[in-house]
Amino acid sequence: MVDLDRKHNIEDIAELAGVSRGTVSRVLNNHPSVSDHTRQKVLDVIEKLNYRPNFSARHMRTDSSNLVGFGLITDEVITTPYAVEMIRGAQEALWARGKVMLVVNAGYDADLTEASLEALLERRVEGIIYAAMYHRPVDVLPQAASVPIVLTNCFAADRSLPSVVPDEVSGGYAATKHLLEKGHRRIGFINLGDTGRGVPPPLPASNGRLEGYQKALREYGVAFDPALLHYTNQTPECNYRLSCDLMRMSDPPTAIFCGNDRTALGCYGALSDLGLRVPEQVAVVGFDNFKDIADGLWPPLTTVQLPHYEMGKWAVEYLLSGRGIQDEPVQQLIDCPLVVRESA
Amino acid sequence: MVDLDRKHNIEDIAELAGVSRGTVSRVLNNHPSVSDHTRQKVLDVIEKLNYRPNFSARHMRTDSSNLVGFGLITDEVITTPYAVEMIRGAQEALWARGKVMLVVNAGYDADLTEASLEALLERRVEGIIYAAMYHRPVDVLPQAASVPIVLTNCFAADRSLPSVVPDEVSGGYAATKHLLEKGHRRIGFINLGDTGRGVPPPLPASNGRLEGYQKALREYGVAFDPALLHYTNQTPECNYRLSCDLMRMSDPPTAIFCGNDRTALGCYGALSDLGLRVPEQVAVVGFDNFKDIADGLWPPLTTVQLPHYEMGKWAVEYLLSGRGIQDEPVQQLIDCPLVVRESA
Repeated sequence: MVDLDRKHNIEDIAELAGVSRGTVSRVLNNHPSVSDHTRQKVLDVIEKLNYRPNFSARHMRTDSSNLVGFGLITDEVITTPYAVEMIRGAQEALWARGKVMLVVNAGYDADLTEASLEALLERRVEGIIYAAMYHRPVDVLPQAASVPIVLTNCFAADRSLPSVVPDEVSGGYAATKHLLEKGHRRIGFINLGDTGRGVPPPLPASNGRLEGYQKALREYGVAFDPALLHYTNQTPECNYRLSCDLMRMSDPPTAIFCGNDRTALGCYGALSDLGLRVPEQVAVVGFDNFKDIADGLWPPLTTVQLPHYEMGKWAVEYLLSGRGIQDEPVQQLIDCPLVVRESA
Repeated sequence: MVDLDRKHNIEDIAELAGVSRGTVSRVLNNHPSVSDHTRQKVLDVIEKLNYRPNFSARHMRTDSSNLVGFGLITDEVITTPYAVEMIRGAQEALWARGKVMLVVNAGYDADLTEASLEALLERRVEGIIYAAMYHRPVDVLPQAASVPIVLTNCFAADRSLPSVVPDEVSGGYAATKHLLEKGHRRIGFINLGDTGRGVPPPLPASNGRLEGYQKALREYGVAFDPALLHYTNQTPECNYRLSCDLMRMSDPPTAIFCGNDRTALGCYGALSDLGLRVPEQVAVVGFDNFKDIADGLWPPLTTVQLPHYEMGKWAVEYLLSGRGIQDEPVQQLIDCPLVVRESA
């Protein structure tokens, strides 16, 4: 029996996966001779055991060229708090194979992005992940073709590179369906709008979440009421005011779907000022599962998970699978599931 | 006249700083022949103009060895949302000099930290910043002596390496003094405690903030009342319950100083449930200036700024100044100023 509490080695993985040590080693070194089925079985055990290969100096001296796996370029993922779980997802998938990931932040500057890419390529990375802070189309990087690359939380407008993005429609649908199942029929939606203008923006997040909201309403035979849809410029004042506006309607909603968790902060403030209790009098659902807000609010916020961790992990596994430069560029969608807490 | 809106070049900087082009170039290349006074004058202009050197491919080909400046190793700064501004502070200081920063996250694993350090040193970085997610002592890295290093938001227990950390006392003092100036004399303090135990932890943040709280009380002749001091394990339930406990005292506080902004979330929830308005009936001050919470809450939260950006910037400038391997290891404190919003 393998003791799940102690530090593990390759023998443990082999035993639990029912394969040989050599097979585990081949999976860790990404050898193409392992079948997809076996590879997945081994990776599942590695994840279950939270196995980390030996990063000691001795290992490094014998195998230092193998140490750095991928380079990860971000626009501002590592300088803003919203999508850091992408880094963790990618990193843990690489750590499981004894590899370190070099990260460079490049802002939104094309020259700097190019320079960062060159800096990573010069430093012998095996692959590149380009990760965006918010879901959006990006320009294709000219040097991208020289090394396997995956776009994460973004996509090439011409779909010429593989990408992994959230399935925003699934998230809008999950949030709205949950409220419908709880009996709500008047569901306000404060969607993400352009900063300062409060109009529908061309954002995949806004458009997809609205599509999911409308899809769920249709399934339950509830007519879409445009008066229940607002767009926030995401300032606290706007989030607060739109929530008040919704609740002061002659036929106010019994539930509010907030386009992100920060919007829910202003919404909670408005409901508190109006003397309305969450969820007894008004149910609230957020979007992002930005844990410091969602899990810190009282009552804790029911919200939709943006699959940042899963996207980072998917990107590494896609590159390691060797499919990065061979097949059609995959445009992978990852589901946005509901996280039920206490606000709806 | 230099037009502040267009893209700038070295001539603009020279003109505004009143120095020669060559001097600007020497500052950008960190040449030791420039006096501290002149260096600072040039850096101030660079910051004012938001100048970025040319990162184009041509620049890189002629000068690619100069492109990568520092390596930054973090425990989990880039995989958690709390201290990302440190990365931005360091990065913008390096960008101003045409340099890219390579970042590696190493978790809390000593072998992995060592491996990350080796990976960066092999890749010809000029200096290393080791940045911690929360203010704490760290073990000294054995290879650290081979390249200039600064510890950021952490320090060597034996003070053998230069470090830059927040002045926690200044923050606790600023928060409490603000409340005292507003006339409050019964000020509850929900300080950061050990997870799950609610007792005083050996954290520089908790100890320093408490010291600042007591210092301000003394200055205003207010006796310290231990019944007003609680320690939260930082779960939402605990933050909520401790806030309720304070307000249900026979002589309740008129203001609550929360050990961090997340604590303020639970505190707002408790005050809302008790029908108490912020700030009219109870004033609330947070700590961190974690903007998504502090600026997203309604009413927006008055809080104390953790100087993450400034620490990152300080670390780069310290290393670029060439002092990293010569002088006594500096233990730099950075002030934690109050950010006044609407909750107190």
